[in-house]
Amino acid sequence: MSRPLGVFDSGVGGLTVLKSLRRKLPRQDFIYFGDTARVPYGRKPPEMVRAFAWEIASFLERQGVAGVVVACNTASAVALPRLGAALSAPVWGVIEPGVEAARRTTRSGRVGVIGTKGTIASGVYQAKLEALGLQVWARACPMFVHLVEEGLAESDEAEVLARHYLGGRPDIDTLILGCTHYPVLEPVLRRVLGEGVALVSSADAVAELVAGALGAEAGGSGSITHYVTGGVHAYQHTAEVIGGVEGRVIPLDVNRLADAAVRVGE
Amino acid sequence: MSRPLGVFDSGVGGLTVLKSLRRKLPRQDFIYFGDTARVPYGRKPPEMVRAFAWEIASFLERQGVAGVVVACNTASAVALPRLGAALSAPVWGVIEPGVEAARRTTRSGRVGVIGTKGTIASGVYQAKLEALGLQVWARACPMFVHLVEEGLAESDEAEVLARHYLGGRPDIDTLILGCTHYPVLEPVLRRVLGEGVALVSSADAVAELVAGALGAEAGGSGSITHYVTGGVHAYQHTAEVIGGVEGRVIPLDVNRLADAAVRVGE
Repeated sequence: MSRPLGVFDSGVGGLTVLKSLRRKLPRQDFIYFGDTARVPYGRKPPEMVRAFAWEIASFLERQGVAGVVVACNTASAVALPRLGAALSAPVWGVIEPGVEAARRTTRSGRVGVIGTKGTIASGVYQAKLEALGLQVWARACPMFVHLVEEGLAESDEAEVLARHYLGGRPDIDTLILGCTHYPVLEPVLRRVLGEGVALVSSADAVAELVAGALGAEAGGSGSITHYVTGGVHAYQHTAEVIGGVEGRVIPLDVNRLADAAVRVGE
Repeated sequence: MSRPLGVFDSGVGGLTVLKSLRRKLPRQDFIYFGDTARVPYGRKPPEMVRAFAWEIASFLERQGVAGVVVACNTASAVALPRLGAALSAPVWGVIEPGVEAARRTTRSGRVGVIGTKGTIASGVYQAKLEALGLQVWARACPMFVHLVEEGLAESDEAEVLARHYLGGRPDIDTLILGCTHYPVLEPVLRRVLGEGVALVSSADAVAELVAGALGAEAGGSGSITHYVTGGVHAYQHTAEVIGGVEGRVIPLDVNRLADAAVRVGE
């Protein structure tokens, strides 16, 4: 019997990654973990995000997952590779695949990356892109995730903020969307950036990587189980902005997450 | 022995109201409830916010509070007066006192009110102000709460968004800050509005009302107990933008809040 694949994010943003994974692995079973009681991660201290990531990955491992996809860029930036070394199941982050996709996409060698404060301040994207000989422009866009969660991706506010954040960019030909929420902002970003800039999202890139690694193992019934630390109805309502929730939603007590007692069905 | 006073909000915003209450009632004991696992309330459907408010107020009543202050404008707008009728303890919202303070403040009779989508869409402020013969301009500013919680109250983003939201206002002389987070934005709002517009916050107005009602009863040791539905450390971190948390913080499982079993110490 095949084991489920674990996917986790601070909230609903990682559902964009789950969608890409399901396109590549339609029969795979998934456990999606949304840490909605502690969202957003973007401006929380790295050690706090690292502790959250460890609790969640350990929880997923106790559920017997075949591997863990860290769909959250902030958590990928500050918790990897240490998390991968500590778990017995394989762990994939979204940063490496995004960087690799940007390298394949750029022609001029001038690449931009946008993300939360935590992701950009970590410098992980910048270091990896520069190690490939690329020139990098990086910008934290802390309000973008809230635009998406407020259902304002197509609003005047989105236009105003996108012009604010991207107005000072140099001449880049590729922009990495370094946050799982940002693909929802694609229309406004395209409008503000014009034709000359390709957008790279990690969602498809990480899905390709994981599908290649799991290969023939990826059997199952295509089920999805969601675990959320916040309110169930609040999660379903917020998730509508990313296309909604499919599958069961099971609540967990966030303040007991580290307890060994918190297992499925208890 | 005097009983504690309950104060609740969707998250940390109500701490501005708690601060005003403590100035008026320094010896009063308080229970502050932050529903951080389901924040923000601003764009959630009214019936969902009403259900949350009912769960929380019932919880506070089971703790034996002397009364409940609904510090959240969105909850005040959609859950009152029904909530007051259903509880045996007295219930105070922030809207009536804010309206009353605006009436005392305005000279021209032209008043503005800003708040979340839920608060403004409810039309409650507008109806109450118009019933007093005032002319009203109302504007939902859904991104303001996120500016505050991201620690961006003094940022370029705050300036850009404040100009966006307030740019089209008519000639008003008073603006009600119809959301508990907004007092944190006072410096940028003053800059954008100029000298001619007085800002009215409900925090002081509701504190005065409650202090008058409790009167001599307001004894105690000046203690504060916080109940939060989200993560404890995440709460403490976010609360720093409003001046931090004083007192014990006790976590509650949000998905079991409606259970009679959820009582202090269990």
